[in-house]
Amino acid sequence: MAGVVVRNIRRADALVVDAFTQYGVATVHEAQGRTGLLAAYITPVYAGPQVAGSAVTVSVPPADNWMIHVAVEQCEPGDVLVVAPTSPSEAGYFGELLATALQARGVRGLVVDAGCRDVDELERMRFPVWSKCVSAFGTVKETLGDVNVTIVCAGQRVEPGDVVVADGDGVVVVPRADAAKVLDACRAREEKEAVSRERYRAGELSLDVQGMRDELARKGLTYVDQADA
Amino acid sequence: MAGVVVRNIRRADALVVDAFTQYGVATVHEAQGRTGLLAAYITPVYAGPQVAGSAVTVSVPPADNWMIHVAVEQCEPGDVLVVAPTSPSEAGYFGELLATALQARGVRGLVVDAGCRDVDELERMRFPVWSKCVSAFGTVKETLGDVNVTIVCAGQRVEPGDVVVADGDGVVVVPRADAAKVLDACRAREEKEAVSRERYRAGELSLDVQGMRDELARKGLTYVDQADA
Amino acid sequence: MAGVVVRNIRRADALVVDAFTQYGVATVHEAQGRTGLLAAYITPVYAGPQVAGSAVTVSVPPADNWMIHVAVEQCEPGDVLVVAPTSPSEAGYFGELLATALQARGVRGLVVDAGCRDVDELERMRFPVWSKCVSAFGTVKETLGDVNVTIVCAGQRVEPGDVVVADGDGVVVVPRADAAKVLDACRAREEKEAVSRERYRAGELSLDVQGMRDELARKGLTYVDQADA
Amino acid sequence: MAGVVVRNIRRADALVVDAFTQYGVATVHEAQGRTGLLAAYITPVYAGPQVAGSAVTVSVPPADNWMIHVAVEQCEPGDVLVVAPTSPSEAGYFGELLATALQARGVRGLVVDAGCRDVDELERMRFPVWSKCVSAFGTVKETLGDVNVTIVCAGQRVEPGDVVVADGDGVVVVPRADAAKVLDACRAREEKEAVSRERYRAGELSLDVQGMRDELARKGLTYVDQADA
Amino acid sequence: MAGVVVRNIRRADALVVDAFTQYGVATVHEAQGRTGLLAAYITPVYAGPQVAGSAVTVSVPPADNWMIHVAVEQCEPGDVLVVAPTSPSEAGYFGELLATALQARGVRGLVVDAGCRDVDELERMRFPVWSKCVSAFGTVKETLGDVNVTIVCAGQRVEPGDVVVADGDGVVVVPRADAAKVLDACRAREEKEAVSRERYRAGELSLDVQGMRDELARKGLTYVDQADA
Amino acid sequence: MAGVVVRNIRRADALVVDAFTQYGVATVHEAQGRTGLLAAYITPVYAGPQVAGSAVTVSVPPADNWMIHVAVEQCEPGDVLVVAPTSPSEAGYFGELLATALQARGVRGLVVDAGCRDVDELERMRFPVWSKCVSAFGTVKETLGDVNVTIVCAGQRVEPGDVVVADGDGVVVVPRADAAKVLDACRAREEKEAVSRERYRAGELSLDVQGMRDELARKGLTYVDQADA
Repeated sequence: MAGVVVRNIRRADALVVDAFTQYGVATVHEAQGRTGLLAAYITPVYAGPQVAGSAVTVSVPPADNWMIHVAVEQCEPGDVLVVAPTSPSEAGYFGELLATALQARGVRGLVVDAGCRDVDELERMRFPVWSKCVSAFGTVKETLGDVNVTIVCAGQRVEPGDVVVADGDGVVVVPRADAAKVLDACRAREEKEAVSRERYRAGELSLDVQGMRDELARKGLTYVDQADA
Repeated sequence: MAGVVVRNIRRADALVVDAFTQYGVATVHEAQGRTGLLAAYITPVYAGPQVAGSAVTVSVPPADNWMIHVAVEQCEPGDVLVVAPTSPSEAGYFGELLATALQARGVRGLVVDAGCRDVDELERMRFPVWSKCVSAFGTVKETLGDVNVTIVCAGQRVEPGDVVVADGDGVVVVPRADAAKVLDACRAREEKEAVSRERYRAGELSLDVQGMRDELARKGLTYVDQADA
Repeated sequence: MAGVVVRNIRRADALVVDAFTQYGVATVHEAQGRTGLLAAYITPVYAGPQVAGSAVTVSVPPADNWMIHVAVEQCEPGDVLVVAPTSPSEAGYFGELLATALQARGVRGLVVDAGCRDVDELERMRFPVWSKCVSAFGTVKETLGDVNVTIVCAGQRVEPGDVVVADGDGVVVVPRADAAKVLDACRAREEKEAVSRERYRAGELSLDVQGMRDELARKGLTYVDQADA
Repeated sequence: MAGVVVRNIRRADALVVDAFTQYGVATVHEAQGRTGLLAAYITPVYAGPQVAGSAVTVSVPPADNWMIHVAVEQCEPGDVLVVAPTSPSEAGYFGELLATALQARGVRGLVVDAGCRDVDELERMRFPVWSKCVSAFGTVKETLGDVNVTIVCAGQRVEPGDVVVADGDGVVVVPRADAAKVLDACRAREEKEAVSRERYRAGELSLDVQGMRDELARKGLTYVDQADA
Repeated sequence: MAGVVVRNIRRADALVVDAFTQYGVATVHEAQGRTGLLAAYITPVYAGPQVAGSAVTVSVPPADNWMIHVAVEQCEPGDVLVVAPTSPSEAGYFGELLATALQARGVRGLVVDAGCRDVDELERMRFPVWSKCVSAFGTVKETLGDVNVTIVCAGQRVEPGDVVVADGDGVVVVPRADAAKVLDACRAREEKEAVSRERYRAGELSLDVQGMRDELARKGLTYVDQADA
Repeated sequence: MAGVVVRNIRRADALVVDAFTQYGVATVHEAQGRTGLLAAYITPVYAGPQVAGSAVTVSVPPADNWMIHVAVEQCEPGDVLVVAPTSPSEAGYFGELLATALQARGVRGLVVDAGCRDVDELERMRFPVWSKCVSAFGTVKETLGDVNVTIVCAGQRVEPGDVVVADGDGVVVVPRADAAKVLDACRAREEKEAVSRERYRAGELSLDVQGMRDELARKGLTYVDQADA
């Protein structure tokens, strides 16, 4: 039943998408009510990159990357490719040749719930990938899948055009329709944290900055000195 | 029954604690008779740091980091915070705000048998963390735990005031009372290894440097040449 | 029944072995028909190195590294030590002292289907290791194993003198007798990919460069525009 | 944003749902085009049961089972409760008390992407559960979730009212709207397999029954006799 | 520094120990404030048994079961042997010969944070074992450990003479000094649950039996009917 | 390069093969010097069976079971099919239809380093399977592999015609040429253990039966009584 490519997907406003780059995955996740976080086994293949972009989604058969080739054509500058196999796979779906093709189109990175290869070269190219594992074992090109359909990637539903934010903490997905609102919540949260941060840096305690002492005492927290031994 | 904070814990002599920084985790582990090593799943969130410090211990409920906030106040310069949940958890208990607070108090690092977040920022701040995993999924602040009680962290018993040594190989705990003695054993071991190292560098074999040939022969080791094929 | 050291093993032609350094593990794996790849849990202990060398194989008992000491003597410049326990082990079989000894003999690296320690120091020395895990828990020297016999390492059969290629993607083994032929196949593959790479960089699609459109259509791939919502 | 209970969900026709009990999970999965299979880590807590029912879905916070209590009221005879935490959890969300309540309402089983407890008692009660793990570590009742919303459970999207089929092979979800069509496909598949099964039992080979020999030969399959050794 | 056998340990009152057999691990865990539960990877090697007994503890080197032989002599009727390696091991420490010896002394079972073998025979003998894994790979008898010292087993501290309760849900440890008090708490808890159980069986909802509706409403739980689609 | 079926393989003497059924995997493993044990993740899909047979080996591509169909024809009564993918796979390669075909030919069981499905039906049929996992996700029939070539299965080299012994502890492989010798060693071992077993059953200690006390004392084992507390 697979074999559909959806073209001309709606994306969030480019300014909104780009603005997410200022916020870490943890902040975005909190700001949208602790939803949308991909499973923690999705990690960057090299340390450092942080990206935000619009999801182009790809549903692929196990150990078959044919549809990634199909998906390249559907990508625009500012996109992030999000790939999920229909059954768990640790094959190496993606390497530097496909990265070259995506980089030429302005794609900002890849998230794949499976394996990736050529990781040394990907780091040299500075093409960021978040994957389940690293594997040199390649894939075949035999069976159709889908592009720009709803997928489940690492435990999260991803729709084409959703905003994908990724950094060293992992990957979070923001529904397209919520993007502006979540961005506002990120800003609010970050402003609040900036104040706390300065006070902590000056040596104040969160017990005082966040006024936790009364509630702790109410729940029965007790302070004692270490006994002689 | 939780809800106790023990203040004014005894720590090992500061000179002794600091001296451990010269020795790797593997050396310390051997020097104290192969004890005290935390499970290998505890790894640094960024490569490079090596620390030694006095343990401030924190027992936390699953997915609740309230007691870490409580513990900050009990920390002194030179300490390492050691956090263990009462039930396995992969939540992100710790991020850059708490790191800012700890760094302001001179704390040298964190060991947590659970998740950590904001790892890119932690590297930029140079605040070292050894954790079970990276997870942006935050915690709540609802339930009490304990500070400076005996805990089991990644399979090892840790008492408040024990010496914690951590590097790329993981984390080892030295009982406070044994610290000076173990430090001496580290020195002795390192001096012996320095001699071996020079001889190996000059091309000598450990078979000869450590005099293994007789025992190997006695156990029946046999040398043959490869057959023609 | 263990306790044999085979000396004077045959190795592949040094020029052939060295030439493999130009090719990544993924390329070599494809070039020899998708065989010889070690399990993906074998990873470099620090990022960056790429080596090719001749295998000196070591079969070791669980948690006993005595035979690695024996194997050092059998190594020549250009070799890679490949170590497999007879039963799964996560002990730290290898550290910087053995690395010093191997480096002094011109050995290019180590592959071990078990644990490794002193990883910070190994990176400073630039002695590359691919291992199953990092563990400071050392080994004993009690029981014999074998050197330069056929072993199974991370799921692959390795014969002494086989060519071992390792990089960020993992480790692949090329049978000694096939080395020249596989090297040719690598060259051919790389030349072909160089052409594709240039075309992708210029913005061409693999759909066109590799002529996939007809076969995709034949299998029923359908393009639709996103519906209004 | 959580805290919604959807009542009076649409279910598939009861005769259709019940008819699925005749088919194994593997058959249903094939019959609907290899979709809908939950991750293989979801296993029955005791061997033997096979159920089909209509999904009542529950989205729960990590380590909090309050919403399962809420969901019981929404269940009807013939339902299967499907529970997924918003973040990975191995807590024991479910035990014999809740099973007693569900059994009293005619619920046929539970699928939970987290832990389960009281497994000996569940087997004595014959209340079937498919879970990620067994854990005696209980949950709290502090935070709201949702009942009968779309969830992702063990990597699959589940809508309230979908048909859930579970046996020793795991769990598969059939979209409500497709249930009748998939049931027909199961019947057709099973009839075809029944014929093959009889021929295999009589000693015929699938190479002949399914006419594979020509295609195998075309792809180059070669038969040789074992060489003398 | 290992090599100590502590004799004549204190045990809890036999009537108290035996009374724990009536309660499941989940009940005991709750009754003592959610402490003492071993990690969930400790599972019974065959389904069904439930035991309670006094802990005889054994600290063993990796892949060396010599001290289990030493420990047998320290066991009395009603004991449970609890074995933990000083470093993680998946070797098969225990099989039917040792089980025969323990059964002859009236020992009720074994908990081992490592591997076990001869599992078919153990089931035939009805000697219950809770282990980390099953492995036919045996151990050596070379290095000393300790008997009846404090150990950490699967993440929990166990003292000799503590009460160990094990069933299909796993293993929980009750400190010897708390045994009578925890037993009382189990009784109280079970009596309360018996009442709930009867009401659930009669079709009442926990929402009503436990009076949850007000608190749920206060937190904002909302009921809606499914929209037409 | 795959695509070879080797016919008319040599098998071990049928009486020798059958005699192995009396010995457990642990005994056979010890009797041949602790070699040949498959990785512990290979477990029986239902509890109870014990088999010994001659290996028919199958090398299969990832997620493709075509060659199992080819292999059926090469099987004789008394064989055990041993299947290994060329790259790790958790697909369900095998179900009840293939089991029907194998049972019709007198094949005694299957060992597969990948997934298996229809496990409830396999138990009803009493066709024993040892697998890496259970998965309803089926395979394709697209790519050739090999039958009766040397394979690596779960970390062990298996040659066609080797003797495979499997029970609840896992799977061990005996080289064909060593079968008679290993069988003798099993007998000798079992006779010796039978004597020990009787003495243990009568309450004697292995410390005395195996005369361990002197060596333990020589290594420094010390007995102390528990201190008052």
